[in-house]
Amino acid sequence: MLISFEGIDGSGKSTQARLLAEALTAEGREVVLTREPGGSPGAEEIRRLLVEGAGERWSPETECLLFTAARRDHLERTIRPALAAGKTVITDRFADSTRVYQGAARGDLRQMVDRLHELMIGIEPDRSFVIDIDPETGLSRGRARGGAEDRFESLGLDFQRRLAAGFHALALEAPGRVRLVDGRGSQAEVAARVRTAL
Amino acid sequence: MLISFEGIDGSGKSTQARLLAEALTAEGREVVLTREPGGSPGAEEIRRLLVEGAGERWSPETECLLFTAARRDHLERTIRPALAAGKTVITDRFADSTRVYQGAARGDLRQMVDRLHELMIGIEPDRSFVIDIDPETGLSRGRARGGAEDRFESLGLDFQRRLAAGFHALALEAPGRVRLVDGRGSQAEVAARVRTAL
Repeated sequence: MLISFEGIDGSGKSTQARLLAEALTAEGREVVLTREPGGSPGAEEIRRLLVEGAGERWSPETECLLFTAARRDHLERTIRPALAAGKTVITDRFADSTRVYQGAARGDLRQMVDRLHELMIGIEPDRSFVIDIDPETGLSRGRARGGAEDRFESLGLDFQRRLAAGFHALALEAPGRVRLVDGRGSQAEVAARVRTAL
Repeated sequence: MLISFEGIDGSGKSTQARLLAEALTAEGREVVLTREPGGSPGAEEIRRLLVEGAGERWSPETECLLFTAARRDHLERTIRPALAAGKTVITDRFADSTRVYQGAARGDLRQMVDRLHELMIGIEPDRSFVIDIDPETGLSRGRARGGAEDRFESLGLDFQRRLAAGFHALALEAPGRVRLVDGRGSQAEVAARVRTAL
């Protein structure tokens, strides 16, 4: 089973991915917790090109190709081998992030994103959880983390709002797979909502 | 006008691209001499991921996505602005290299390469010169250069032979655009053949 966590920067999705991985492991499942961009040695190298540096460093089209290259490597070297071994894979971001970040929020490129996904990736998660919080909260949390990986946060609040709207639209578009989870409250409260939705 | 030079590693295509750029500049044209992978600051960073390291570092599919990402950046930031300013652009490698290196020689991925090119790049050079030498000579020249950029040379002689066959097939497939130029003899002799073909 492949499960993805999605959401805007600072939504708490990485924490929720980890909490679900810990809960499933405690129940005796073999779980691989991974992330995008990254999740394999090659994809982690591509990650540095994507999450560091100036916001306008890449056009949305080039960005989309780099995310897809990282995803292809992650899929070949980490996800598919783990699924083939019967493990549960939980990934912090997957293709929905590209649909929203490059397909909707940085231009009207959704058709291009979809064709690229179909050509080079093909697979969808069995279940995707969008941790939903308001963009102001997300941005202030993301910025409070500091560090060099602030390229998308640097695009500002209007961009975070477009992202949040994009994730809402995606949940309406694929209601069988994508579940919107209220991200307000304590980590344990959000984790309980994720378990109910799963 | 966009002109590309293509060929196997060690074919002398980089020298010929430079000689043609010098000759056209001497005739009073504004010429931009560039190269792939690379040719723009972002694409040069992607280049390092592609030409250094172990041969099996990336699958042909991931490699193709990385080359296309670098090409998209090169096109947006270097080639299109130069063409729009009325300059002649001469590039050491372009899409034909991906058709041959990833599409033919490392798997049977030509259809995937073509669809990715159509979706993300679209443009073809006005003229492409394949500098044709035998694979043994190319490989020994490429290896004699040394340096860290030996990832494709490290794939060996059989791989170089598949590349040479791939370039021959491409010249037959697109005879109006792709010209095979005999790469034997002195640099000046080969340069004279290029000028005749142009």
